[in-house]
Amino acid sequence: MAKVAFIGLGNMGGPMAVNLVKAGHQVCVFDLFPEAVAKVVAQGATTADSLPASVAGADFIISMLPAGKHVEGLYLGDDGLINHISPGSLVIDSSTIDKATVIKVSTVLAEKGINFIDAPVSGGVGGAQAGTLSFMVGGNEADFNKAKPILENMGKNIFLAGAHGAGQVAKVCNNMLLAILMSGTSEALQLGMDNGLDPKVLSEIMLQSSGRNWTLEVYNPCPGVMENVPSSNDYNGGFMTDLMAKDLGLAMDTAVQSQSATPMGTLARSLFALHAGKGNGSKDFSSIIKMFEKA
Amino acid sequence: MAKVAFIGLGNMGGPMAVNLVKAGHQVCVFDLFPEAVAKVVAQGATTADSLPASVAGADFIISMLPAGKHVEGLYLGDDGLINHISPGSLVIDSSTIDKATVIKVSTVLAEKGINFIDAPVSGGVGGAQAGTLSFMVGGNEADFNKAKPILENMGKNIFLAGAHGAGQVAKVCNNMLLAILMSGTSEALQLGMDNGLDPKVLSEIMLQSSGRNWTLEVYNPCPGVMENVPSSNDYNGGFMTDLMAKDLGLAMDTAVQSQSATPMGTLARSLFALHAGKGNGSKDFSSIIKMFEKA
Amino acid sequence: MAKVAFIGLGNMGGPMAVNLVKAGHQVCVFDLFPEAVAKVVAQGATTADSLPASVAGADFIISMLPAGKHVEGLYLGDDGLINHISPGSLVIDSSTIDKATVIKVSTVLAEKGINFIDAPVSGGVGGAQAGTLSFMVGGNEADFNKAKPILENMGKNIFLAGAHGAGQVAKVCNNMLLAILMSGTSEALQLGMDNGLDPKVLSEIMLQSSGRNWTLEVYNPCPGVMENVPSSNDYNGGFMTDLMAKDLGLAMDTAVQSQSATPMGTLARSLFALHAGKGNGSKDFSSIIKMFEKA
Amino acid sequence: MAKVAFIGLGNMGGPMAVNLVKAGHQVCVFDLFPEAVAKVVAQGATTADSLPASVAGADFIISMLPAGKHVEGLYLGDDGLINHISPGSLVIDSSTIDKATVIKVSTVLAEKGINFIDAPVSGGVGGAQAGTLSFMVGGNEADFNKAKPILENMGKNIFLAGAHGAGQVAKVCNNMLLAILMSGTSEALQLGMDNGLDPKVLSEIMLQSSGRNWTLEVYNPCPGVMENVPSSNDYNGGFMTDLMAKDLGLAMDTAVQSQSATPMGTLARSLFALHAGKGNGSKDFSSIIKMFEKA
Repeated sequence: MAKVAFIGLGNMGGPMAVNLVKAGHQVCVFDLFPEAVAKVVAQGATTADSLPASVAGADFIISMLPAGKHVEGLYLGDDGLINHISPGSLVIDSSTIDKATVIKVSTVLAEKGINFIDAPVSGGVGGAQAGTLSFMVGGNEADFNKAKPILENMGKNIFLAGAHGAGQVAKVCNNMLLAILMSGTSEALQLGMDNGLDPKVLSEIMLQSSGRNWTLEVYNPCPGVMENVPSSNDYNGGFMTDLMAKDLGLAMDTAVQSQSATPMGTLARSLFALHAGKGNGSKDFSSIIKMFEKA
Repeated sequence: MAKVAFIGLGNMGGPMAVNLVKAGHQVCVFDLFPEAVAKVVAQGATTADSLPASVAGADFIISMLPAGKHVEGLYLGDDGLINHISPGSLVIDSSTIDKATVIKVSTVLAEKGINFIDAPVSGGVGGAQAGTLSFMVGGNEADFNKAKPILENMGKNIFLAGAHGAGQVAKVCNNMLLAILMSGTSEALQLGMDNGLDPKVLSEIMLQSSGRNWTLEVYNPCPGVMENVPSSNDYNGGFMTDLMAKDLGLAMDTAVQSQSATPMGTLARSLFALHAGKGNGSKDFSSIIKMFEKA
Repeated sequence: MAKVAFIGLGNMGGPMAVNLVKAGHQVCVFDLFPEAVAKVVAQGATTADSLPASVAGADFIISMLPAGKHVEGLYLGDDGLINHISPGSLVIDSSTIDKATVIKVSTVLAEKGINFIDAPVSGGVGGAQAGTLSFMVGGNEADFNKAKPILENMGKNIFLAGAHGAGQVAKVCNNMLLAILMSGTSEALQLGMDNGLDPKVLSEIMLQSSGRNWTLEVYNPCPGVMENVPSSNDYNGGFMTDLMAKDLGLAMDTAVQSQSATPMGTLARSLFALHAGKGNGSKDFSSIIKMFEKA
Repeated sequence: MAKVAFIGLGNMGGPMAVNLVKAGHQVCVFDLFPEAVAKVVAQGATTADSLPASVAGADFIISMLPAGKHVEGLYLGDDGLINHISPGSLVIDSSTIDKATVIKVSTVLAEKGINFIDAPVSGGVGGAQAGTLSFMVGGNEADFNKAKPILENMGKNIFLAGAHGAGQVAKVCNNMLLAILMSGTSEALQLGMDNGLDPKVLSEIMLQSSGRNWTLEVYNPCPGVMENVPSSNDYNGGFMTDLMAKDLGLAMDTAVQSQSATPMGTLARSLFALHAGKGNGSKDFSSIIKMFEKA
């Protein structure tokens, strides 16, 4: 059993921390919202009076925060955790943030003997609750191996993507591709419907042909084709358009940094931004198909 | 056993006709190139002195031609087959052509009591030889059911997409989506590589995540990731960039006709046209990833 | 004074014919709608009982029709005008159609000794009425010189773009570029507004900088920046989104035929198609800026 | 005559500083490269031993640096100029940087009573030498009015775009639009050439029609159409593709921050990034037309 500090108990972090508790670890949690803390404490976690106190003696420090600036602030800011984490401990940051921040934070922590891996996840709130997340890890192999048993308490697929930052890059690439799959599948289905095809039939054909992709398999954007997906629930639940747009913004940042050309990916960002801009930001991202439908 | 006339014995039509012979049908073939005819005759087909003679008494007339104008010319042109096919026969056109030509030809043939289905294929030369093509059929259900046993001698998946023209629409939608998958996957892999990731590792991660699609499963565009695919054979074999560009041209025609917006699909066409324009037209279409690579 | 037959008296053709009458020519007009004919006759034109009669003895036959199929039907169809126009006459087709039809019609007419130029226009209904259209002519120089005085009665700028079909190509290129200017300018203005800039100020800056273009000069898409433009009249009048979408469809056809890559142009088509699809087809095309505005 | 400190004497900053000297101002210059300093000193400027010394007693501090991090470092870094500039002085930053840095630097300087405007330029090295730059200013009106006479010694058009950061936003919008104009014009010209048109003739037609834009007026991308432009000099001189790609990266950042959709602008970035990636980064940006040309 390990001693784990868990910081950031939102929709994702909360259930992840609970799964660690259930696995038998000694988990001390921290969040700015007392209600979020209370929920996890009710499942058996402990908490502390202060951030520094929460990490005292922890073997693993896991953080799940909204953006790069929060992660940098947490570890390197005024009285940051860098001054409180024991050397030899392993920081696992599961936030989805930019690679540059990962490099900066991991480098500065390393100077104090603190180990770090970036470990963003995919799988959504459902995966966090069910403990079936995918983790895409950036860091060295020893740290990856050390973290793996812990991550396996929260997820199903644990990948080592490469060195520090590689976890973030892998996630950004995957989600950019997902956005392309979803908008491409949507316009193909709509083109078929505009020409008289039944979307159920066309989905079935493409699923068994070279157009097959994850969205056709488990997340069809067209209402009525598949049960138990957001498109058949008025685009509620699922992965919000605003969050996809945020991830695509990170993809653009990454492409600008490496001077890469990503024409399909940046077009997808523009489409999701257009869609969000018309008031659909909190709907599931598969609602993009509605953009292609004639009024 | 049926009496079948087969017209158009190119890279696709030739092996398709051979498979019908092997299945025990009485097959009379026709092509403008004597060598193409000779090859199929050597496998047991017969031939005829003229096009009209080749269809005499046939239950099924199958055509596999390059473009809509050839199909229209064959059936409706000066002394077209419309004057020679027996009423009650079934025409199966497996060419990949525009929907408008399908509607025109099928309508005019119907006035003479000749039945018609459009039945374009996917699966390439390999599928034609192995008899594992997919057929996407447009037409009425009775004709579909009548054709099905014949098509099953040449293919594995036989879909009824809808009314006349629906086969062509389904194919166009599927291939447009395939082009999107291939260019999207290529730029995601290149973005990862530009940021230090190993394409094998990134492919594996995305294959098990929401970026999964047919190209990652069986047709990875990055050399060395997968064996026995065009990318590991210097982009030889496979599906030529020029043919993908042709199919995307049909997709654009279809979208213009139905006034549909296909931003991802038409961007993919531009990318493949750029790629073909730089001398890569006869390379496999997965070579599009080379466009994203820095020189 | 010339003897002119004018066929097709719509929003454009009607006022063009009237300008020829005003210039003193002997004009015989024809249209399927009697009201359209009556209007021009009221200005001094004559008419005829039948299409063939309308072109009898004419030095110039001018046609202004909606699409290529109408032009082909008019001249080459059953009892087409090819059988009625006097050899040595000059056909001036001002319809906006595809290059392929131009080549076909001009070639067949030439076999009968009938000359032909394609002469599509830009300048809209206002330009047709004011006699300030631009003509983009495809054909040989002798025919161009012969037509020029006639065209100058209807327009201000008369360009010889090249051989047969070149007039259509020039128009398609220009209008594709216009669509790019309008959507690009719109998103630049909206990006500025989203970041707190006054569109009037930003328009003024870009107009005097390297972003200068026709839309900023005379057709600003942002309401209130300029007087007497559609954007300041609720996007009424001007050039309908549906017509721009039609021209962009011709641009796509042209690009597919010549296997050219036009990524910006085809993206513009998708944007205008999306915009039209949401019920904005009859609004002026500068209303595209509303697509970029957050709801 | 004013006392001016000028920091950053690159290709742009050097000639700008010289123009201030020529206008009679007392100019103290600083740069990390002694040769750059020597050149301007040879024209009558003074220099100082250290950065702090260079700004002592200056009424105006002008900086011209490559990126946001340099500007932030200069003013707010360890021993930054914030500690050495006299309250009441006016900082004029002419670097092209992100809006967020402008807001941060101007806000922190304001707390010390130091005034700030952002004043990025357009017009290139030629404009810097000739004193014909355009300045796009963000800041309050009093500071703008105070700076104007100084800016007029270096430029011709001095615009107040809005509050702090607005100068940067205006520049980003203009340059994004310029990239759209250049790539759109290039593909329109190439489409015409692919269909047999003479680019000189087509340029002339579009210049006098609704396709008119700055690139057709003064910067035609097609070799031989215009004299004394980069395209007629093997794409040497002018505005490097790499710099355009950098500006488009800033446009993407801006769009991500304000959650704006810029489909044409981000597609243009991808095209310029593709072009740069194939070894054309140091060629003039009008060489993008070569991407559309068939090999």
